[in-house]
Amino acid sequence: MGGGILAGLRVVELSAFVPAPLGGAALAALGAEVTRIDPLEGGPDAGRWPLHEGRSLYWEGLNRGKRSVRIDLRSERGRVIAARLAADAGTVLTNLPARPPLSYTGLRTLRPDVVMLSIGGRLDGGAAVDSTVNAGAGFPLITGPEGHQGPVNHALPAWDVAAGFLTVAGLLAADRHRILTGEGRHVKLSLAEVALVVADSLGLLSEARLVEAPRSRFGNHVFGTFGRDFRTRDGRFLMVVALTPRQWRSLADATGVSFEGIDADLADEGERWRHRRAIGERLEPWIAERDLDEVAVAFESHHVLWGPYRTFKELLAEVPAAWHPNASALDFGERERLPARPAPTPGAHTDAVLAELGEDVEELRAAGIVA
Amino acid sequence: MGGGILAGLRVVELSAFVPAPLGGAALAALGAEVTRIDPLEGGPDAGRWPLHEGRSLYWEGLNRGKRSVRIDLRSERGRVIAARLAADAGTVLTNLPARPPLSYTGLRTLRPDVVMLSIGGRLDGGAAVDSTVNAGAGFPLITGPEGHQGPVNHALPAWDVAAGFLTVAGLLAADRHRILTGEGRHVKLSLAEVALVVADSLGLLSEARLVEAPRSRFGNHVFGTFGRDFRTRDGRFLMVVALTPRQWRSLADATGVSFEGIDADLADEGERWRHRRAIGERLEPWIAERDLDEVAVAFESHHVLWGPYRTFKELLAEVPAAWHPNASALDFGERERLPARPAPTPGAHTDAVLAELGEDVEELRAAGIVA
Repeated sequence: MGGGILAGLRVVELSAFVPAPLGGAALAALGAEVTRIDPLEGGPDAGRWPLHEGRSLYWEGLNRGKRSVRIDLRSERGRVIAARLAADAGTVLTNLPARPPLSYTGLRTLRPDVVMLSIGGRLDGGAAVDSTVNAGAGFPLITGPEGHQGPVNHALPAWDVAAGFLTVAGLLAADRHRILTGEGRHVKLSLAEVALVVADSLGLLSEARLVEAPRSRFGNHVFGTFGRDFRTRDGRFLMVVALTPRQWRSLADATGVSFEGIDADLADEGERWRHRRAIGERLEPWIAERDLDEVAVAFESHHVLWGPYRTFKELLAEVPAAWHPNASALDFGERERLPARPAPTPGAHTDAVLAELGEDVEELRAAGIVA
Repeated sequence: MGGGILAGLRVVELSAFVPAPLGGAALAALGAEVTRIDPLEGGPDAGRWPLHEGRSLYWEGLNRGKRSVRIDLRSERGRVIAARLAADAGTVLTNLPARPPLSYTGLRTLRPDVVMLSIGGRLDGGAAVDSTVNAGAGFPLITGPEGHQGPVNHALPAWDVAAGFLTVAGLLAADRHRILTGEGRHVKLSLAEVALVVADSLGLLSEARLVEAPRSRFGNHVFGTFGRDFRTRDGRFLMVVALTPRQWRSLADATGVSFEGIDADLADEGERWRHRRAIGERLEPWIAERDLDEVAVAFESHHVLWGPYRTFKELLAEVPAAWHPNASALDFGERERLPARPAPTPGAHTDAVLAELGEDVEELRAAGIVA
């Protein structure tokens, strides 16, 4: 492959839905050779929405830059070939159940230093997906409009995304250990534990333990400081935040709004939180009397921490021309920048990859083992 | 340090708020030695909510397992010492502006193979935080109850979390390159590009380009399949999903509910999506007539993909006794499992760390450079 920072790393992916494919796509975007093994009839996510003219835009987005090999994993012979591929690559990423010889123990007999990362769902090993993990993770009961009854799910599958990126970290940590010691590892990750670690890291488990009152739902306010959405004269929404004393001064300077009469030191973020309604009421008319463009000029010139809300179409329209899909969001500099690479047609690399392994592709295809 | 999979990796962190601290905490949880340099008066996030008896539970959650050194970075002498520390460690993680000699160029003169990862906000280099990036990322306008007007922010800072974990991947990718070639790198990441990559990976940018109708808001429904929340007789909420034909059969079998009269092949997920209201109406009474415990027994025995909604207090109560904070969510096996380690008192390691560097700590403290 060459070019990317991970040049030389070879990964076989046995996956479906988001976390393992996203991790694999990130590895591919960094220059790893990632080969996805797909079932003959396509995986359970091959037709996942959004669709366009029969194509799954979801599948195409999550598999950019990969190679695809179609093998019948229900047949013993297919699994043996998949295991040879995995052992040859040396690194395996999966969120599917792994039957021998595709289990870690099985692969280790073929390749003693194999690194395998398995993504699971629940802490007890049971199946889970982003939305069922999210239900149990506390956040849906504090998300959404104040006064709303019941849970509000996220539209962004945030746990899938977090797990996908953490997967890359886990594979690279095990690969580092392998480079330094020659030893492989089986690395395990569950969506539920990712949620637990994040809730703990943000102080929410400690709060649940130490603070008697349960965490409330605060709508679009940023908890513990000043931050909320506003609406402009031309009907656009924007988010404004003042986390630091400097950001608070910027907001006051940009708008010229007076906060006199609010009996508190608003340079303190706790005070801004306590007086968030009064602060918001002062800012609302200033913003409501202006179009987004005018607000933008005032905010930008004073370095206010803010941003307009955008639909996906508005986001797309403002993507810089130089940006292209299959970027990794990690920039290692010009030398490691890769060109855009689309997702493969499923099975596009079956012949090339199996020929590299020394398999007789025509015979395997005639036997219905590959496609 | 020893023990963790990343034993031997030494990282200096110059940070505030979530993404860099979360990345540093994940590195520490994997056994890296992570030293956070804090300003004398505490960083801008030192008092961030949630609080308990004057302690920031947020700061404590995001800094578990690290060492803390307090240095006056406004003084030239303080910055020189910080740069010596960073060069000695060899790897630097920051989401703050880096002035010489703490810039990448400055650090490279001290340590040619230094790896530095800098987290920024906007694509144009401007400041941004999770909530302002989220505003522009499309998701808040499709999150929340159907029919709701205006944006719905996430309570989980999902972009901070994604960027934090991707940061670990980026540092380890650069470290791998350094181990193999001896070369360092300056790695850059912006919250806004993380959001762009994720929206693209999920097919949402392609959908915005190719599909005329903008993506709508679908409440708690999982787009493109069957999945939504329900309420039990005892007032608990739960999430049920049927992504695959097998999961759909499980749900039908567990409830015994008949879907006759719905004129579609509900084994097809697109059809389940189109008929989600009719399906939901059939399931509602079955769930509403049962307590959560009864539903759980039926669902678990049929392997239904589901989960109860929980508050943070309910989540805390169900954390397994064996789980402890400062776990990384990545399990490398028994040999690499680390004990729980709390966050440091700010400055707790100033003396030890600077003594290792050969600095005269007493003199520096007298001069007001360290604390």
